[in-house]
Amino acid sequence: MMSITDILYNGSMSRWQSDAQQRLAQAALTLYLERGFERTTVAEIAAHVGLTERTFFRHFSDKREVLFGSSNQLQALVVSAIMQAHKSATPIQAVAVGLEVLGELFAPRLEWSRQRQAVINQTPELQARELTKFNSLAHGIAEALQQRGINEFTASLSAEIGIVIFRAVFERYINPSNQKSWTHLLEESLEQVKTIMAGLNNRLPDVVGAKRRR
Amino acid sequence: MMSITDILYNGSMSRWQSDAQQRLAQAALTLYLERGFERTTVAEIAAHVGLTERTFFRHFSDKREVLFGSSNQLQALVVSAIMQAHKSATPIQAVAVGLEVLGELFAPRLEWSRQRQAVINQTPELQARELTKFNSLAHGIAEALQQRGINEFTASLSAEIGIVIFRAVFERYINPSNQKSWTHLLEESLEQVKTIMAGLNNRLPDVVGAKRRR
Repeated sequence: MMSITDILYNGSMSRWQSDAQQRLAQAALTLYLERGFERTTVAEIAAHVGLTERTFFRHFSDKREVLFGSSNQLQALVVSAIMQAHKSATPIQAVAVGLEVLGELFAPRLEWSRQRQAVINQTPELQARELTKFNSLAHGIAEALQQRGINEFTASLSAEIGIVIFRAVFERYINPSNQKSWTHLLEESLEQVKTIMAGLNNRLPDVVGAKRRR
Repeated sequence: MMSITDILYNGSMSRWQSDAQQRLAQAALTLYLERGFERTTVAEIAAHVGLTERTFFRHFSDKREVLFGSSNQLQALVVSAIMQAHKSATPIQAVAVGLEVLGELFAPRLEWSRQRQAVINQTPELQARELTKFNSLAHGIAEALQQRGINEFTASLSAEIGIVIFRAVFERYINPSNQKSWTHLLEESLEQVKTIMAGLNNRLPDVVGAKRRR
């Protein structure tokens, strides 16, 4: 099984395979932000850093790949951490362990993550793509939980809650005014969802009172 | 404010505007299932019920609209119920009230819902569309909760949990082996998410034991 260190720092799983790939990615992001994703061509991205279209396609299968190319790494990281979580961990604790390691992934890429999200948020096609990726991640998490012996229904719900929490944490983490660590935001969001669910069986005092008065 | 009855049964919000629209919709679904969504043309759908392409476009803006045309009605129904929930309801109780009314929407369309979902599940383009619709619904629910005076963070998380629960309930509801009512499945899913979240702060007995033994 891969360790977090393997996934984050070994050659094949590092952020960029080469200097050319990194320069192309940054150029792409800059142009997507300036001109819009749809209006940017691969030729323009390559020209921006003095490279050819052919070189671009050696590193990325298409324009979207620049933004979503690391989603498999992210999923591998989360799944690996869930599989390695303590055997007594509850489903939501295992999911929390899986999400916590992502802090190590995003901390050194904060500015990249902000710019990337700004591009996605202004492009419906990319938003749809992002939702599809989250859906795949949920399936990956649910499978990992089932491998830990958790039944399908609980595994699926726990995984979906994990995605809700991941999105909430990520949105707050990349906010320029945020001062809190990834782990701190994760704990807050988990506690908040727990509190929300604890409100499920609250009695409605006014209704009860009204009945009693009759 | 619209009542559930208004939304479900008045003219403008009913399922189909006319007999032609209904026949076109059923023909479309049948052909999508038989031939695949991509391989079915609007001309074929219209011809299947002896109507013209032009008539199809009088009722639906495109092929996808047959499957997603009622998503605005669904959202109006949920939002309206949330706004009308008892003023003492907690955020998750308000969301539950919003989701419960959907039982009235799906009960008379069970077979349609099953066939529709089968088409979506075999078509990546439609799956992406469905995820986008769920995302819109989450935003609608979050706004309704904020109008009830709930803060943005709690409203957004409660809405996203609502979508997770809606998807889980719907999947189980349309399963041919299901015997339970919409409300029953909703209550089970809500309780299950509550139970999952209650496992957040469980102590890990083995870890604690290991430390103590040192």
